[in-house]
Amino acid sequence: MDSMFALINRLTAKPGKRAEVVRILLESGERFGGDPACLLYLVSEDAADSDVIWVQDLWTSEEEHAAALTAPELRPYIERTLPLLGGVPVQVQLRIAGGKTPRS
Amino acid sequence: MDSMFALINRLTAKPGKRAEVVRILLESGERFGGDPACLLYLVSEDAADSDVIWVQDLWTSEEEHAAALTAPELRPYIERTLPLLGGVPVQVQLRIAGGKTPRS
Repeated sequence: MDSMFALINRLTAKPGKRAEVVRILLESGERFGGDPACLLYLVSEDAADSDVIWVQDLWTSEEEHAAALTAPELRPYIERTLPLLGGVPVQVQLRIAGGKTPRS
Repeated sequence: MDSMFALINRLTAKPGKRAEVVRILLESGERFGGDPACLLYLVSEDAADSDVIWVQDLWTSEEEHAAALTAPELRPYIERTLPLLGGVPVQVQLRIAGGKTPRS
């Protein structure tokens, strides 16, 4: 498969703060809606753990993803999120093998 | 967001068997290419753990996903995969909150 870039992020909110973190993640991600380099930005709640949030990213390239994250407009969202987290976020680095994607 | 259904699967292959498991997953997933209910089926290798595979699924509904898995043609792939696994697969059940998807 071509140079697409995928990431899975697992965030843990402080007890009772998950809904607020989800709102911030969705609001900050609105800017990706019009970005053709962003193929997927999926925010989900873990059905089994009431504090856990999963964010799945798929981008046309690692460079496009890195460039999107440098937008200064994202900084306030990050600053609002950090005090609501109860643990260190886990970022799973992936090497895409293939499958069906929005580009297939 | 509507009734879309998302899953994250984390598989652990026996040492040295990951590439073979990935091949089987990609081959078995070819049938999803023509299935409009499948919005994403992404098979990736974990960059940090040489035995781990991540499979990310996004479907138009939980029912469509369940229906796709009942195809008898999938059974041989499952039977070929199981002896190559070194641990019990972990399936993360998600409740989609929103974001950008192939349907956005």
